[in-house]
Amino acid sequence: MIKNLDELIRLSKLKDKKTLAVAAAEDNIVLKAVIESVKQGIINAVLVGNKEKIVQICKDENLNYSNIRILDIKDTKKAAEEAIGLILSGEAHFLMKGMLATSELLKAVLNKAFNMKKGEVLSHVMVYEVPAYHKLLFITDGGMIMNPNINDKIQIINNAIEVTRAFGIDKPKIAPLCAVETVNTSMQATIDAAVLTAMNKRGQIKNCIIDGPLALDNAVSKEAAFHKGISSEVAGDSDVLLVPNIESGNFLGKSLTYFAKAESAGIIVGAICPIVLVSRADSTQSKIYSIALGACL
Amino acid sequence: MIKNLDELIRLSKLKDKKTLAVAAAEDNIVLKAVIESVKQGIINAVLVGNKEKIVQICKDENLNYSNIRILDIKDTKKAAEEAIGLILSGEAHFLMKGMLATSELLKAVLNKAFNMKKGEVLSHVMVYEVPAYHKLLFITDGGMIMNPNINDKIQIINNAIEVTRAFGIDKPKIAPLCAVETVNTSMQATIDAAVLTAMNKRGQIKNCIIDGPLALDNAVSKEAAFHKGISSEVAGDSDVLLVPNIESGNFLGKSLTYFAKAESAGIIVGAICPIVLVSRADSTQSKIYSIALGACL
Repeated sequence: MIKNLDELIRLSKLKDKKTLAVAAAEDNIVLKAVIESVKQGIINAVLVGNKEKIVQICKDENLNYSNIRILDIKDTKKAAEEAIGLILSGEAHFLMKGMLATSELLKAVLNKAFNMKKGEVLSHVMVYEVPAYHKLLFITDGGMIMNPNINDKIQIINNAIEVTRAFGIDKPKIAPLCAVETVNTSMQATIDAAVLTAMNKRGQIKNCIIDGPLALDNAVSKEAAFHKGISSEVAGDSDVLLVPNIESGNFLGKSLTYFAKAESAGIIVGAICPIVLVSRADSTQSKIYSIALGACL
Repeated sequence: MIKNLDELIRLSKLKDKKTLAVAAAEDNIVLKAVIESVKQGIINAVLVGNKEKIVQICKDENLNYSNIRILDIKDTKKAAEEAIGLILSGEAHFLMKGMLATSELLKAVLNKAFNMKKGEVLSHVMVYEVPAYHKLLFITDGGMIMNPNINDKIQIINNAIEVTRAFGIDKPKIAPLCAVETVNTSMQATIDAAVLTAMNKRGQIKNCIIDGPLALDNAVSKEAAFHKGISSEVAGDSDVLLVPNIESGNFLGKSLTYFAKAESAGIIVGAICPIVLVSRADSTQSKIYSIALGACL
């Protein structure tokens, strides 16, 4: 089992080396992370985009691009489609967003002509190494789906299980998080949490243990769960926090980064290959972790 | 200006001593915090509730209740109404929830016969002392209002300003938090954030500086704001984080407590007196801070 993000890097180096296709690679932040990952032996890369700009950035930032294949495609939509083409032809194994809008890349991924969708839902999974928590903590979805309904949540869970499996977690403990740990029939999140728990018990959602509703305190602290009289296999020992809306996952994740000194990696799953999306505000290390995560899925 | 929660305790001792009315006080957790607050000279208290149980808990927990007035009322609804009666008669200055459902206490508070409402909206304000942040951080509303609309948010802001004023913050910087820092017309929170910002600029929301939408990273980190090219008086220096729904505020606050080692205090504002509500999972210190906060408003 992988216990921290440095072990993820090590794992990525042990496996057959994967090739990352970067769509619209003319982005200094992205190029730095990709070329550093190539240098560390985590991945091979193909840069798809405006070659002139890519070369200029590499020169300006003192990045060694000599062994990296560059496909010169200036139009960002075409660059996205070409990167997807590399996946479909087997020349590359996963995607990364460069200097184009997320929506533009996802539009290409969701284009039926490419048949890149695996399930019904693409979702975003973050993994956090939090000093104050005893294991890696996965949060989903604070990045893509604004207000998932119960069916979306089932897909989000299955997508998350795909990620936890890469970390060697057999049966992740999944907490459908709510503002309270009891069912409140006027709070949809608590109703969904109860339903997901029942579906898990009846074998309708497999390969995990779901117990909710849980509030964040009892999901991550056995003591807090004890105070509330909660008996649960998940409480205090959650692997995955399933959040009810994008804001709640987003704030929770960012608070771990900014206030709890957590390291993190993130990935979009649900397509036939993982998609790496990094934010300018992420640390370079976090971007490399995300690339390694994509390589390990 | 009050810079941390211990200063809040000191302030509460410098002011004229306030009297707390505890509704259905027969709760060991509540009694401990109240009697410790009385002992420390933060407040006077009147315990309204089942006297036999109150006395038994005090004996079991070794709490000195000798100088504390107890009104023996066994029915919890009546205890809530009697506690409110003490506020209306001027014998007590603020309320605390004991061994009754929050909904039962709030129902009594909202009962028109008592005329306890000041504005249209009661809301919950938390204040966090976060080691990794350079000032106190107020979060609202992660405790009461599930999905505030724009009008609710205006009231929530005004309620929060009442709390920041007690800390000597003249013009609090308020960040309407969203999952992104740009307006996305399909994300209501970003639309509301833009509207609140405009209303503040036009003087429709006074005594504060509002700038949004902001994501959590740029709301609390000048560096993250700089990376995103955001120029804002609020970015990186927020006093108040206005969250778009109960879950997002709730998870954010709890993550500060459980992962970022924050101390906290919380209060319900919007009625003619503050209402203290503590959770069993809160530390005793946090409960005392909440009582001191109520005494300072």
